Amino acid sequence: MTIEAVKVYQDLKGENDRWSVEIRRLLAGPRLLMLNLIGSPGSGKTALLEATAPAMGDGTRMAVLEGDVATTRDAERIRALGVPASQLLSGGACHLEARLVHAALADLPLAELDAVFVENVGNMVCPAEFDIGEHAKVAVLSVAEGEDKPLKYPLLFQEAQAVVVTKTDLAAVLGTDMAALRGHLEAVHGGIPVFELSARTGEGLEPWLDWVRARVKALRG
Amino acid sequence: MTIEAVKVYQDLKGENDRWSVEIRRLLAGPRLLMLNLIGSPGSGKTALLEATAPAMGDGTRMAVLEGDVATTRDAERIRALGVPASQLLSGGACHLEARLVHAALADLPLAELDAVFVENVGNMVCPAEFDIGEHAKVAVLSVAEGEDKPLKYPLLFQEAQAVVVTKTDLAAVLGTDMAALRGHLEAVHGGIPVFELSARTGEGLEPWLDWVRARVKALRG
Repeated sequence: MTIEAVKVYQDLKGENDRWSVEIRRLLAGPRLLMLNLIGSPGSGKTALLEATAPAMGDGTRMAVLEGDVATTRDAERIRALGVPASQLLSGGACHLEARLVHAALADLPLAELDAVFVENVGNMVCPAEFDIGEHAKVAVLSVAEGEDKPLKYPLLFQEAQAVVVTKTDLAAVLGTDMAALRGHLEAVHGGIPVFELSARTGEGLEPWLDWVRARVKALRG
Repeated sequence: MTIEAVKVYQDLKGENDRWSVEIRRLLAGPRLLMLNLIGSPGSGKTALLEATAPAMGDGTRMAVLEGDVATTRDAERIRALGVPASQLLSGGACHLEARLVHAALADLPLAELDAVFVENVGNMVCPAEFDIGEHAKVAVLSVAEGEDKPLKYPLLFQEAQAVVVTKTDLAAVLGTDMAALRGHLEAVHGGIPVFELSARTGEGLEPWLDWVRARVKALRG
């Protein structure tokens, strides 16, 4: 990158970070948890939310902001469950910008919610670089993607405060080496909580739900 | 984006496009085909190249440029097959820039090659926006990623001149709706050649090899 390009990248990040501050202000009043789900296209982010919403129970009232380059398919999937969902279209951009998230949050009944899940644009690289005012980034990785992804895309796994490994019901047929995957995650971010689950069968969902519930409770005090 | 950010994005693209011109000049002398493989992390780009290299036969002498954010694992996998391979590390960037590709090409014995395959950084969004002087972009999508990806990430499939649908041996167990996937590809880019194959079993590989061979032959006249 040229020096000028670096400077404007920093300007873009600065603009983004100013909106992140505004988002934190919006969330602080109602003590609302916001999680930023980041993973490749097809890693199973929407399916994770579809499994999470009904299982969370009435104790945790949730809403979803669905980020995509194009289409409103994911928001429709979530709304079909009776969960408030807004679709954020990035208009070709490879990540969600905080300004867009702020505008969508302002449309939600924040005082009536406990947790907002943001599903970022399907991409392991760029969304990891942008703060959108979330309390935690959560990396979502399917067993179909290969064990080496934490090594090859380290920033996401370093920035994340938890990893959800999805589609574990397919690990045997895909021949995924789960021990190698766990080892790579530990090498990139020692001690990070890893939730291995299948959204399709529901197996392994409970520890992930408990982690979310504990984060909500920590905010409420 | 601010107006200044748009201007510098254009500067970056302009700088990139100038290097693309230099790459086309490098390729023109030896009439060398360059294909730019783009797909998500774990879509099977490296496995496709591992299956392609030995099957291509001596008639097509190939080399590989492996783009990644970090690690040299993919280049090592290709070199293990006796195919010349260089690792390009994007240094955190979400796509390969033409300047980097140009420098790596200049290190290859271009006059002794027929085709160079560039494996871009695992990402369906950003690499689709950047010309690296290739003759064609090839979209790589695994059956594990979901049928709707052409609709949700349309630019890649519009820019590509061929689509390789990988891991077809897993379609049944994954429940992939292949007819829906084909319909979505046709909706986004009518008439685009689609190669459905399994790099693991070799099934469906031949039409893809024929397409590459025909592109090499077209350049050689």
